[in-house]
Amino acid sequence: MTDPTVLLPSWRDGATRSSLLAFLKAAEQLPVEQRVAAFDNDGTLWCERPTYAQFDFLVSELAAQAALDPSLRDRPEFAAVLAGDHAAIGDLGIARVGLALAELLAGIEPDEFTLKARAFMGGALHRTLGIPLLRAVYQPMLELLDELRRRHFAVFIVSGGGNEFVRSISQDVYGVPPEAVVGTQITYEFSRGEDGRPLLLRTARLDGDANEGAAKVHRIQAQLGRRPIFAAGNSAGDREMMEWACAGDGPGMALLVDHDDSEREFQYVSVAATVDEATPITAVAAQLGWVVASMANDWTSVFPTS
Amino acid sequence: MTDPTVLLPSWRDGATRSSLLAFLKAAEQLPVEQRVAAFDNDGTLWCERPTYAQFDFLVSELAAQAALDPSLRDRPEFAAVLAGDHAAIGDLGIARVGLALAELLAGIEPDEFTLKARAFMGGALHRTLGIPLLRAVYQPMLELLDELRRRHFAVFIVSGGGNEFVRSISQDVYGVPPEAVVGTQITYEFSRGEDGRPLLLRTARLDGDANEGAAKVHRIQAQLGRRPIFAAGNSAGDREMMEWACAGDGPGMALLVDHDDSEREFQYVSVAATVDEATPITAVAAQLGWVVASMANDWTSVFPTS
Repeated sequence: MTDPTVLLPSWRDGATRSSLLAFLKAAEQLPVEQRVAAFDNDGTLWCERPTYAQFDFLVSELAAQAALDPSLRDRPEFAAVLAGDHAAIGDLGIARVGLALAELLAGIEPDEFTLKARAFMGGALHRTLGIPLLRAVYQPMLELLDELRRRHFAVFIVSGGGNEFVRSISQDVYGVPPEAVVGTQITYEFSRGEDGRPLLLRTARLDGDANEGAAKVHRIQAQLGRRPIFAAGNSAGDREMMEWACAGDGPGMALLVDHDDSEREFQYVSVAATVDEATPITAVAAQLGWVVASMANDWTSVFPTS
Repeated sequence: MTDPTVLLPSWRDGATRSSLLAFLKAAEQLPVEQRVAAFDNDGTLWCERPTYAQFDFLVSELAAQAALDPSLRDRPEFAAVLAGDHAAIGDLGIARVGLALAELLAGIEPDEFTLKARAFMGGALHRTLGIPLLRAVYQPMLELLDELRRRHFAVFIVSGGGNEFVRSISQDVYGVPPEAVVGTQITYEFSRGEDGRPLLLRTARLDGDANEGAAKVHRIQAQLGRRPIFAAGNSAGDREMMEWACAGDGPGMALLVDHDDSEREFQYVSVAATVDEATPITAVAAQLGWVVASMANDWTSVFPTS
């Protein structure tokens, strides 16, 4: 049992933990309204390999619908997904496949989507780790969320994932309410039932861009109206948000989660696509002076043990 | 001095106050995550006559810029505004005039807009009431916000006003942080300064529709992800949001502020434009069973006295 009075117990002593503790201490001197933290989700708060949890959910939904309507198997996007043929998915394009999958959940109310997502996530196991998907979250990051909140930070999740999907689990898994999630948004259609009752229905069309790169900065300002002074991410899609957090007048900190632990999680490097496709995000971090959390070296445990 | 133990002291005893108290009591039985309340701002939380506060701010900004650059006076939209010629503004169209005024604040960072708005609002007087604009807020509604928050409601402002403008005053005036404001959104442009520093700059283009009517329902779901069970409004632009709040599975309440007090505030009736242009919103309220707050009869005081 870890001593609960020790801050960030799953962070190993060293430069990264010291930087976090120094930031937390410095933030206590700031006006509360400046204490804003933004976290990417996939690969930053929870595991994104070998597949995104949202993808797993959509595959499950596709399988259920294809069992009732086998003609769905004729569509190339769905055939590739059902076969687990990642080469075919890549050939079709992940965006095209994603929009096809979104059609499976068009025409329903947001609350129905939420119920479906919760039903899936409540029972799903991680494909290779053998733990529930809802437990494939990073214990050190959960501790960081808690320490920020204890210092009256507003803690936001800024994800490339769909708003409704991330919101379906954000309160239970992270203690983050739906309105503090900024994700990719599907367009809704407002209509009225035969009784005149107002209805809001999901479509399969994106509302604006996918929430990656500069779109994350746009949406933070549009939805939240406050610049974070702390941002955590792990990939190219988080770069602008992390730079933005460090570009204010006061203190700012960017934390990059480096997936360098093939033993306990996965080893891979994201490529920063937005400025220079050949530059890995770890090199961007070194160039811009970000703090890097090495999963292998900085984390005493990766997933919750209790 | 009002007895602080009395709930809603500025609400006169009667059917409206009883309905509010019954709703507050019933809500205590609901799961906290269902306790969501949405308030329109102009005409619902603060005075919107004879002009919107945001319009007053933009006129002030226009006058300041025209003093430095007299050529601005040649533009018909600006000439009409500077002359206070409401007929000319009506002829040009309020949307066109509004977008022209938005150009005055394009190309700057959101934080600069906020500072300008705060500087104006901090010193501005209401045009006819002779009180500070920041005091032209409805005391009974402030009491209602407080009672909802005491019951752990998430309290949101869902306004046709601009996000940055409403957010510039929402914390100080209503205790509502920026991320709990859902307003009309200007598009931003992400760019980089010469030093590579990321910059987010306001444009003069709307991001989506003005936040009125069905757009309010869209944005509540997109930004907040939760359906309110309480909605307050005063005009046609609030109708869909108020219907939406009453259309969930559990209890729901819509409160219409009726501007029937020519003595203490203004007497006017909004026309519900979205379904039937000839129907005043008070008739919609009667038809749909909304609770109506008569300013003349239900409010013992309109503005804060201390």
